[in-house]
Amino acid sequence: MAEEKNIGLTVKKEENFSEWYQQVIIKSDLADYSCVSGCMIFRPACYSMWEVVQKTVDARFKKMGIQNAYFPLLIPEKLLSKEAEHVEGFSPEVAWVTHAGDSKLDERLAIRPTSETIMYDSYAKWIRSWRDLPLRLNQWNNVVRWEFKHPVALLRTREFLWNEGHTAFATQVAAEAEKEQVLEIYNDFIRDYMALYGVVGRKTEKEKFAGAEYTYAIEHFLPSGKGIQGPDFHHDGQKFAKAFDIKFLDQDGQEQYVWQNTFAITTRMLGVMIGIHGDNKGLVVPPKMAFNKVVIVPIIFGERKDDIIAAADKIREMLSEYEPLLDDREGHTPGWKFNEWELKGIPIRIEIGPKDLDAQQAVVVVRDTGEKNFIKINDLKSALPELMEAMHKRLYDKSKELMESSIIDVDDYDSFKQVIKDKRLVKAYFCGYPECEEHIKTDTGGAGSRCIPSDGENIGEGHTCVRCGNSAKCRPIFGKSY
Amino acid sequence: MAEEKNIGLTVKKEENFSEWYQQVIIKSDLADYSCVSGCMIFRPACYSMWEVVQKTVDARFKKMGIQNAYFPLLIPEKLLSKEAEHVEGFSPEVAWVTHAGDSKLDERLAIRPTSETIMYDSYAKWIRSWRDLPLRLNQWNNVVRWEFKHPVALLRTREFLWNEGHTAFATQVAAEAEKEQVLEIYNDFIRDYMALYGVVGRKTEKEKFAGAEYTYAIEHFLPSGKGIQGPDFHHDGQKFAKAFDIKFLDQDGQEQYVWQNTFAITTRMLGVMIGIHGDNKGLVVPPKMAFNKVVIVPIIFGERKDDIIAAADKIREMLSEYEPLLDDREGHTPGWKFNEWELKGIPIRIEIGPKDLDAQQAVVVVRDTGEKNFIKINDLKSALPELMEAMHKRLYDKSKELMESSIIDVDDYDSFKQVIKDKRLVKAYFCGYPECEEHIKTDTGGAGSRCIPSDGENIGEGHTCVRCGNSAKCRPIFGKSY
Repeated sequence: MAEEKNIGLTVKKEENFSEWYQQVIIKSDLADYSCVSGCMIFRPACYSMWEVVQKTVDARFKKMGIQNAYFPLLIPEKLLSKEAEHVEGFSPEVAWVTHAGDSKLDERLAIRPTSETIMYDSYAKWIRSWRDLPLRLNQWNNVVRWEFKHPVALLRTREFLWNEGHTAFATQVAAEAEKEQVLEIYNDFIRDYMALYGVVGRKTEKEKFAGAEYTYAIEHFLPSGKGIQGPDFHHDGQKFAKAFDIKFLDQDGQEQYVWQNTFAITTRMLGVMIGIHGDNKGLVVPPKMAFNKVVIVPIIFGERKDDIIAAADKIREMLSEYEPLLDDREGHTPGWKFNEWELKGIPIRIEIGPKDLDAQQAVVVVRDTGEKNFIKINDLKSALPELMEAMHKRLYDKSKELMESSIIDVDDYDSFKQVIKDKRLVKAYFCGYPECEEHIKTDTGGAGSRCIPSDGENIGEGHTCVRCGNSAKCRPIFGKSY
Repeated sequence: MAEEKNIGLTVKKEENFSEWYQQVIIKSDLADYSCVSGCMIFRPACYSMWEVVQKTVDARFKKMGIQNAYFPLLIPEKLLSKEAEHVEGFSPEVAWVTHAGDSKLDERLAIRPTSETIMYDSYAKWIRSWRDLPLRLNQWNNVVRWEFKHPVALLRTREFLWNEGHTAFATQVAAEAEKEQVLEIYNDFIRDYMALYGVVGRKTEKEKFAGAEYTYAIEHFLPSGKGIQGPDFHHDGQKFAKAFDIKFLDQDGQEQYVWQNTFAITTRMLGVMIGIHGDNKGLVVPPKMAFNKVVIVPIIFGERKDDIIAAADKIREMLSEYEPLLDDREGHTPGWKFNEWELKGIPIRIEIGPKDLDAQQAVVVVRDTGEKNFIKINDLKSALPELMEAMHKRLYDKSKELMESSIIDVDDYDSFKQVIKDKRLVKAYFCGYPECEEHIKTDTGGAGSRCIPSDGENIGEGHTCVRCGNSAKCRPIFGKSY
């Protein structure tokens, strides 16, 4: 009899989200900490989810004409410093290479925290004429930002994986038209694969990307009461073009600077998804994100063992498109196995025992509700898509309800502070000034704007800022952030 | 009229391979040098070829039960030093991170030159019982080895991309059985996608991987007269298991060390492919490696321009599965366009002009031979696969002929040295001792063993080493290496 180690969670999500999150990530074998502080290991169950992100988003990028490339990991210090706001934003977090073998390098090299500088150095060389535009390149790679805050697997790590799209256009109109395309790709993925609701909106001046004219992002809300940013899109205008001298001859033979965008989705999104969908039994993985969508557990006892395993194996073959696992391990009770697969978040569990075999049926259990469905073996294949779609929809609806019910409209600053204290989000009129936002941060123990959703733009005249009372320019969502 | 810059190659492959290679890589927009010495940029045409490697090889890995994971980029110095031969092999080439932001790190961190050490640190934690075996993980990632030799795009760079498979088994038999599987996957890919012939063989003691019991590799031969190593497979025995204390309880409750393998294919293979297939017009890309397999050039003049472009566009749609490019740029002559697409190695060029339109046909030109085929427009789709397969076969046969005709059997040391001087490869009996191989290297100005092909193993008694005259143990291929 194998050792029945306690594999379950020892804390409830609603009582201590942080501890629950750490446990669920580690105990489900999704990730592990490494001996390098703040750098984590993506174990296969986790990396396979990242592969779904890559494959799906990349296909959409390619369809819209974005091409993949790969630029060096290391960036000379001089190059990183070329755009002032950009270097100011990133240099406190840069990991520096100073030696190679026994030799000291002449110039320090940054491990890329992001690749604008190394890419635009080449863009300046490659772009000569309007014929070379648009140039729309993307990389799927690793970046390092040496966070000094407490690291959390997936959500806050010193190395993470992402896509970074960097595009250059002949006109601002053409560049800005890319925003809707890219945000739609990200939002479709988050909704249709991750079963997550998010609010798309513009970042305030204070929160925008270092070097951008403006930033849009998809914002999420964790059950711990904190906002967290998902994928983002930055319109950089001509800031980098001017810093890196990226010019082209237009059709009239005039020299012009290009207009640029950058955009990204990171492995942090996997953490957001896990944090929102998981429950007190463990991970809940939306079916489209799960590599193994099904686990089959034969209920083996007595002399019919061989027949039952044969039936389970037949089911495994029948459902091969779902990469089913067959758990025929001896030495574990069915109940122990159920717990393990629930912890790991497999969307569908199929049980088959002697009675089921007699009735030529199986018990199909859906991970999020635990509902049991008795389904004829021959109907399994046709029944699964509907069960999985229904699960996906429930998860999405729940995440939408979680976020929407957490956003409270307020008009006065006392209510504002109270809602933040209650670990929810606030929607309020705001003057837009970074100094005012800094005051809000101080007054609330850290709350800032998350984003300005579309209905918080163009608010017209006559509204006043919830804090300073000056004329309001927008109506953002505020909240503490992860 | 656009500037008709000289885009062609200014040197012949057979006259100066190195210069030809550099030009063909840069002028075809495949790659570019970056401002970090020795680190190159994979431009889209190049990266898309790497995506073919990843996609194809990865699917085979997954089918044989290997799972992808991702381990940290940075490795603490102490960890890197745990296996003595391994650290000795890699430390002269390690790029060291010493600072993060303004802080000096307590311990230097290596940018991974390879990930044995960081992975096996976790394997020791994860593997407890025979139930946890085999553990077969793989990563597709970037590594840095600070070569101090002259860098060459793809062939010798300080950062490169690769897969690194790292597997652990309960028995040596199980571990060693993986060798044939992995080498077959690599060799199938090289033959069926890259159209390259290679010799599979074991490395001598001197040339094996730092830390391995033995190494197998696929060896290639560049037209410059140098051998170059392709993908490799290392059986590590229990060396790392003992250094990292990777133990498990077997079915009898006994503690055992695991048996391990590692294997890799790198972006260098793209350089080998380009170096072997390219010609004096530029790149020759085997059809299965090309993202854009077809370019359509309408021959536009006179008043039938619109009709011709419409016909070209119809062909583009008809052949969409080949990601055809349609070159309807004005301001360039057809001849200039032909040169450009030949330089870029597009496998199939389709020309359509007024006379072709009348005959409802197109001219189909295959990149490697330049042969012209007049094919009815409606037959294009069915005709292309055969043309591409024939091109693939020609390239493969040529690469096989190049390598096989370059391997010369010799029995005496004078002939050995002469063949090396003639920039060819030698097959000769050898005692197997690293010291003797060191002498050969000195005597020949750098030639070493490339590998021991299967017919050079188990050679029986009675043969003597070509250099020292002692009893021979094997019959390797020798040559200078890139």
